[in-house]
Amino acid sequence: MTVQNDLDRYIEEGKMVTEEKMTNELRNLEIPEQLKQSMLYSIEAGGKRLRPILMMASCGAYSSDRSKVLSTAVALEMIHTYSLIHDDLPAMDNDNLRRGKPTNHKAFDEATAILAGDALLTYSFELITQDSRLTDRQKVFLTGSLSQASGPKGMVAGQILDMDAETKDVTLEELETIHMFKTGELVKFAVKAGAFIGNASAEQLTYLDEFAHYLGLIFQVQDDILDVTGDPEKIGKPVGSDEENEKNTYPRLLGLDGAIEKKHHYVNKAKEALENAGADSSYLMLLTDYFSNREY
Amino acid sequence: MTVQNDLDRYIEEGKMVTEEKMTNELRNLEIPEQLKQSMLYSIEAGGKRLRPILMMASCGAYSSDRSKVLSTAVALEMIHTYSLIHDDLPAMDNDNLRRGKPTNHKAFDEATAILAGDALLTYSFELITQDSRLTDRQKVFLTGSLSQASGPKGMVAGQILDMDAETKDVTLEELETIHMFKTGELVKFAVKAGAFIGNASAEQLTYLDEFAHYLGLIFQVQDDILDVTGDPEKIGKPVGSDEENEKNTYPRLLGLDGAIEKKHHYVNKAKEALENAGADSSYLMLLTDYFSNREY
Repeated sequence: MTVQNDLDRYIEEGKMVTEEKMTNELRNLEIPEQLKQSMLYSIEAGGKRLRPILMMASCGAYSSDRSKVLSTAVALEMIHTYSLIHDDLPAMDNDNLRRGKPTNHKAFDEATAILAGDALLTYSFELITQDSRLTDRQKVFLTGSLSQASGPKGMVAGQILDMDAETKDVTLEELETIHMFKTGELVKFAVKAGAFIGNASAEQLTYLDEFAHYLGLIFQVQDDILDVTGDPEKIGKPVGSDEENEKNTYPRLLGLDGAIEKKHHYVNKAKEALENAGADSSYLMLLTDYFSNREY
Repeated sequence: MTVQNDLDRYIEEGKMVTEEKMTNELRNLEIPEQLKQSMLYSIEAGGKRLRPILMMASCGAYSSDRSKVLSTAVALEMIHTYSLIHDDLPAMDNDNLRRGKPTNHKAFDEATAILAGDALLTYSFELITQDSRLTDRQKVFLTGSLSQASGPKGMVAGQILDMDAETKDVTLEELETIHMFKTGELVKFAVKAGAFIGNASAEQLTYLDEFAHYLGLIFQVQDDILDVTGDPEKIGKPVGSDEENEKNTYPRLLGLDGAIEKKHHYVNKAKEALENAGADSSYLMLLTDYFSNREY
């Protein structure tokens, strides 16, 4: 098997177990049908499931048993999904489509979409606390880190900064601050939680935090680059929409070549940190290139 | 000191320590200013703080040190506050005023209000996990129970059922189901969490659960009664607004006398359960009458 085939299979498998677990958990909930359907709708609307896959790879770098991360990986993906539902609302980005399908508030209604988001967020904490394979100490670390990463010090801060920045020009530093909060904190949580469950040491976790920091930035630079050079079929939206919407992006601030150069710099930094993290990090290395070169 | 004075002082003190802790926690957060201000706005907009006071009384029934519940009490009040912010949104109840002040989305904007609610909900879990006075076992129980009580199996279920019921007539049984989810689960959490932190036994917790069940219902019947017989000055809204809005209420289904009778029945059941819970429950007894007779 080639390395590429192996990675593809690894990603596909991670996606599958994540989706199966998410769907099962939600289907088995005894809750009002309208609420269940709207939660399931957004969870089953697809997605790359990169955060759960990253968490599995991070755990696998330190432990042969990756399956222990599953409920935490699902909790993280549910929080990511809730953030998309609320982001799409008329009062926020006012999007009618996501991944080619009507957004939650279009398929249901605004009130239901708000509540489905609230429910996914809240349920994610329940999922972790009820996992019998985790110790109390692990549960406290995981729920504590997840609430920090997704709350007012993390993702929600990023969303409010992002809204604020829409109406003005920002510096590269400001742009990166927004990204670090809005998407970086959850990427960091994915890496940190996986390694923690895999029993990485405190020193290893510090290097992984640095790795995840650069990985989050790579993810964002590539997003911006794809909006310039991508295939509209693959990225699922017209090319050039960022420029049209005058969004602050890496190519806008650095030019396309500058953005690509920046990305390569971050890839090197990420791999350097990973080497210091002393682990069997082959899948994390491969995923770094995958994040950097992805076409959608 | 008379019993009434003593209870008044007890309530006032519980309110004060809750409000002081909430404000301090939020003021000390290093987060974007707009987000902080909108979270503080709703937290400082007043409120009876009945849930935190109830949690303190429940802890005090089993332990001489009530102060250990404080972060959990604050977390619960933050979740209650988030639910009001989201409830008031245009897509939900579309209310412009709460407690005589502009609702969060009126004072700020809709996007900020949605995010302030999300942030309060998420931060409440962080608060509990970071309390150095609680053991890991306690934190897991508390975050797990709180997410259950406030998520899709609890409060959020109640909100979606309530929305659904607005457009039709419901039976008394259906009405009580909605209330048990929408407000009852958080009342139950308040009682259960307090007693748990106070080291009540599993058997005692079962009786307290029954007590809290009736207490939640008492709270709701009295709310409905006040809408008929209350003083508009004290309840902060015109009398008869439920009837005008054709809301499903106890007086509507049972008549005013029937509703009052129902309430007294619940008070007896609550006190009976409390007596079985084997504790120094004098404040819980007093609070039961207080809930039942409150004028606002």
